[in-house]
Amino acid sequence: MVILSNARVLIINPNSNAAVTGAMAKAVAGLSGSTGVDFDTRSLDGAPLGIESDLDAAVVAPLLAQMVRDEDDRYDAFIIGCFLDPGLQACRTVTDKPVFGIGECGVFAALTHADQFGVLALSEASVGRHKPIFRRLGVADRLAGELPLSISVADAVGNEAVYPKLGEAARTLRDTHGAGAVVLGCAGMAGHRSRLQRDTGMVVIDPVQAAAARALGALLPT
Amino acid sequence: MVILSNARVLIINPNSNAAVTGAMAKAVAGLSGSTGVDFDTRSLDGAPLGIESDLDAAVVAPLLAQMVRDEDDRYDAFIIGCFLDPGLQACRTVTDKPVFGIGECGVFAALTHADQFGVLALSEASVGRHKPIFRRLGVADRLAGELPLSISVADAVGNEAVYPKLGEAARTLRDTHGAGAVVLGCAGMAGHRSRLQRDTGMVVIDPVQAAAARALGALLPT
Amino acid sequence: MVILSNARVLIINPNSNAAVTGAMAKAVAGLSGSTGVDFDTRSLDGAPLGIESDLDAAVVAPLLAQMVRDEDDRYDAFIIGCFLDPGLQACRTVTDKPVFGIGECGVFAALTHADQFGVLALSEASVGRHKPIFRRLGVADRLAGELPLSISVADAVGNEAVYPKLGEAARTLRDTHGAGAVVLGCAGMAGHRSRLQRDTGMVVIDPVQAAAARALGALLPT
Amino acid sequence: MVILSNARVLIINPNSNAAVTGAMAKAVAGLSGSTGVDFDTRSLDGAPLGIESDLDAAVVAPLLAQMVRDEDDRYDAFIIGCFLDPGLQACRTVTDKPVFGIGECGVFAALTHADQFGVLALSEASVGRHKPIFRRLGVADRLAGELPLSISVADAVGNEAVYPKLGEAARTLRDTHGAGAVVLGCAGMAGHRSRLQRDTGMVVIDPVQAAAARALGALLPT
Amino acid sequence: MVILSNARVLIINPNSNAAVTGAMAKAVAGLSGSTGVDFDTRSLDGAPLGIESDLDAAVVAPLLAQMVRDEDDRYDAFIIGCFLDPGLQACRTVTDKPVFGIGECGVFAALTHADQFGVLALSEASVGRHKPIFRRLGVADRLAGELPLSISVADAVGNEAVYPKLGEAARTLRDTHGAGAVVLGCAGMAGHRSRLQRDTGMVVIDPVQAAAARALGALLPT
Amino acid sequence: MVILSNARVLIINPNSNAAVTGAMAKAVAGLSGSTGVDFDTRSLDGAPLGIESDLDAAVVAPLLAQMVRDEDDRYDAFIIGCFLDPGLQACRTVTDKPVFGIGECGVFAALTHADQFGVLALSEASVGRHKPIFRRLGVADRLAGELPLSISVADAVGNEAVYPKLGEAARTLRDTHGAGAVVLGCAGMAGHRSRLQRDTGMVVIDPVQAAAARALGALLPT
Repeated sequence: MVILSNARVLIINPNSNAAVTGAMAKAVAGLSGSTGVDFDTRSLDGAPLGIESDLDAAVVAPLLAQMVRDEDDRYDAFIIGCFLDPGLQACRTVTDKPVFGIGECGVFAALTHADQFGVLALSEASVGRHKPIFRRLGVADRLAGELPLSISVADAVGNEAVYPKLGEAARTLRDTHGAGAVVLGCAGMAGHRSRLQRDTGMVVIDPVQAAAARALGALLPT
Repeated sequence: MVILSNARVLIINPNSNAAVTGAMAKAVAGLSGSTGVDFDTRSLDGAPLGIESDLDAAVVAPLLAQMVRDEDDRYDAFIIGCFLDPGLQACRTVTDKPVFGIGECGVFAALTHADQFGVLALSEASVGRHKPIFRRLGVADRLAGELPLSISVADAVGNEAVYPKLGEAARTLRDTHGAGAVVLGCAGMAGHRSRLQRDTGMVVIDPVQAAAARALGALLPT
Repeated sequence: MVILSNARVLIINPNSNAAVTGAMAKAVAGLSGSTGVDFDTRSLDGAPLGIESDLDAAVVAPLLAQMVRDEDDRYDAFIIGCFLDPGLQACRTVTDKPVFGIGECGVFAALTHADQFGVLALSEASVGRHKPIFRRLGVADRLAGELPLSISVADAVGNEAVYPKLGEAARTLRDTHGAGAVVLGCAGMAGHRSRLQRDTGMVVIDPVQAAAARALGALLPT
Repeated sequence: MVILSNARVLIINPNSNAAVTGAMAKAVAGLSGSTGVDFDTRSLDGAPLGIESDLDAAVVAPLLAQMVRDEDDRYDAFIIGCFLDPGLQACRTVTDKPVFGIGECGVFAALTHADQFGVLALSEASVGRHKPIFRRLGVADRLAGELPLSISVADAVGNEAVYPKLGEAARTLRDTHGAGAVVLGCAGMAGHRSRLQRDTGMVVIDPVQAAAARALGALLPT
Repeated sequence: MVILSNARVLIINPNSNAAVTGAMAKAVAGLSGSTGVDFDTRSLDGAPLGIESDLDAAVVAPLLAQMVRDEDDRYDAFIIGCFLDPGLQACRTVTDKPVFGIGECGVFAALTHADQFGVLALSEASVGRHKPIFRRLGVADRLAGELPLSISVADAVGNEAVYPKLGEAARTLRDTHGAGAVVLGCAGMAGHRSRLQRDTGMVVIDPVQAAAARALGALLPT
Repeated sequence: MVILSNARVLIINPNSNAAVTGAMAKAVAGLSGSTGVDFDTRSLDGAPLGIESDLDAAVVAPLLAQMVRDEDDRYDAFIIGCFLDPGLQACRTVTDKPVFGIGECGVFAALTHADQFGVLALSEASVGRHKPIFRRLGVADRLAGELPLSISVADAVGNEAVYPKLGEAARTLRDTHGAGAVVLGCAGMAGHRSRLQRDTGMVVIDPVQAAAARALGALLPT
């Protein structure tokens, strides 16, 4: 085992919803510990319960930068746990350690599997917010489609009853839009991943897992 | 440790150069074993000593597909260990397991660190071969620049004396082209990574490590 | 008549289906002979009966390069007769003569007639395979749409009964997608061209004819 | 010989410079006659001696449309013989026959040979005028570079002494910009083509020849 | 009031329809006079009653350039009042004063309000004509959609009864296509703007007003 | 004069530098008052003296949203007076009035004058920060180039001695990069505009003026 001893990654949930933070911790449990890299998760005190608007994203950005600055000595990498990647560039100005956004990591992970990717968004408004982001990333031409689930963050994370909505949207992305892989467009939904992957035969990406795996890669020695 | 017990990933070196294969194995040693995922490396019998032309890439593509088909029962994921990603689409048609190309994985990994990426290519001819690939991937507008090192595969992998060429090219990509991260544009160069990262202050991506970390992410449970 | 005396062009059908090869020969008969340029057609021994997957394309690529190398002395230009342009870059490495892909030539020919082009594909899977190609070529923003005919290669080439499917799809591309010209997305379909052109009032491009005309242009003196 | 008997193509030189018109006629002489297709060339009465500004292009556009309308009964296809493709869309509204622009045809022809193309322009101003055109065509990302020769139309067509300028610019496009094929960015320069091709080892495209070959393809039977 | 005393802007209606010219004058009345900048409007004698084809656009282009040249001494800026921006580049060659196209100005104005814009076109044919323009402008990826109203220029300008068609199309662009702002795709429709804005809750751009405001900005002192 | 009586626009300087705020007020003085639209300017209390990093931009974004919310009843439109457009999307969530960013408005204004635009940035770091913005806006392919002046905000606003740096960079953008219009890449530089325009013969855009003129257009009646 040659990974940096005691390397530590902090995954920050930019909202104050402990259930989302808990779901993130569970999603990356398989990477923590035995690799020599610990993944900690943290909610953002004072943040809204969900990042559901560009205003929410703006409000938490400086708080995230403050937390990264405060924790800079204790961690080797940081992950911003919201699909909108709030404050990502700002956080990078306060540390020399890598800072990853789960939105970017999730989308790029999907593209390592298939030519066209789809996204499951919580709401119609999310779909609109993601368009300029995908254009900025350069991946707009590889987006097969993005469909809104019309569910709340709370439901996405903890309510098994919403699963049929995910299944239906993912199948539409596959059959109508030509998606070859699907990204869960919100943190905390990893609990649906295996089932959705099995039911649709498509690769399903949880963006938190994608970012955690990327962080592990960045911390590899040599 | 909840990662799939006994999960195995096969990294195929599409050339028959054992030194390259050995360098790949060393590059991912930190991920193998304790995570519950074994990374095996394999040279491609009958392949050229280096993939140095589109003809070489075409010649090995069906051989790679054959090896993936032959090993499909024994592995949970495959990695094609050449920056040109030869036979990637073909390999995906013979297995339901994920197949990753180190070129795609390396480039996307760089983009999780910085807005503009640079590439260190072995030769001027490589630079030309990569252009349509970057365009196909959608990342052409994020390429700060790609510079040829004018060195052989053998030198890239095993000759420490070429390091100054890497350093100079990386600094030019940073200072003149505006690159914020650099990808080593050939398999087997991970040995230079830490030093180059330290000397330039830029993130340096070894594409084999990037692909291995991505494979780990794809094999996470839940 | 000042065209290079005895200039010869080899059109290689990358599959082993003689009916397709015959249809190609017929499609370019009007260009052969009196222009001073002979167009020969050849099936690829050992190839599958149709190129129906990325694996098929990978398998025939080195065989195509071998044939081009073997025939290099006897021909002045080569045409790869499959819409996926398998092995095109590889073939270019073994000869100094021009090598044309019918996919590229067909698409660019359509764009000399209209702002937006459509494609008639044999299958839904073909549509997905063409997307990264069009992106690589730079023409993705000019694609009005591509529709699958859900017919076999054999039917496409020799079964007049499939014509209504072509007519319906072409009209949909024209009226719903805004296509101003349509490309037949497979070799050997030139027999439908005139009728489809007449019935729809749109320019219809047979990619083999487009490549042959392009070869003629490349062989012009001065 | 099964090409449409007596098919006729009219190549219109949008300027009134007879030397340019003559050079065009010579360039396509190899295609005329024996193929069953006659290529006629015509100067545009009342046009300037060269199309050297966007104003010149605007002035000749309606005159070109008028000529196409007047000659519609006598020809099966039309070619606008100026690299700016003046009046192309307007001409298409007055005839059901295909109308080709040599600019479009020349660029697309180059792209059937190589991934990156270069252009030899007469002047710096031409280079600026071509940028929005290449963007509209979708080929801006495939342009390796465009270099001005700083010569007049008259010199381009008839003065052998300017050849060294072409050679130097073409070699720069090849060696510094990475161009794999070069387009002569003005009508009437075909006389330099063979020599330049031989000297540089690159494919050189005369756009008039490219358009004529394309017209031949469009007029093929079946 | 420090704006250039007696600055004058000429808005040229490239067609000869006085009703359209009058509607333009009314649309910019609020900017004229008290700002120190006068906006004059002028029909183009000898032009068609509407610019309804690429031929119409070609025909008026040199006439527009002639009028700009004739009026160069009397005006400080010019506006071409047709959404196709006919003759824009040509007009710029005959004056050093700024020349604005209402198509460009209208689209860019919409983009200062929202990420995705929609367009209300008079006809299906207009939609097709605008595609290459948007691609040339670089805004194709920001177009949510463009819908034809299937009405005449006369109706667009003066017939209040067509309003429901505008309302329905705008709502479809908002709800189905995701447009955040809508451009009226023809000159002379400003009379519908306020009502449509109020009814849909979306920003509605009259391109003549957008160009006039832009001209005012260009004429500001410093 | 039919403009909305008493319409008011608030231009917020997102930094706390009163000199910059004063320069903005002066830049738009020509539009204020007689048009019936008042332009107020305001510094942002508690903001840094300059927005010189992505962190600065993140810090002021929520403060800007708060000010817009607080002033929503008193103004008809808002302008964010920093080239990075900090908090633009966030501000739009707290008001139904239009909110303009000077970065977007400045760039689009330049594009109404010329095909290729250039930008004068304060620093090398600014150049890097603008790249993803231009990509998101869709205008990356129209950027001729962006050059750093290596001067401070204070110098840009108030030190006439830096003018030669602007002149030299603008001429380089014109002659070497092919820019046809230049944007001043920071608020408060309008004082250089006329002189630079006169000296270079190129259109020079002050982004604050561009946004103010756009706001005027948005507030026009009918």
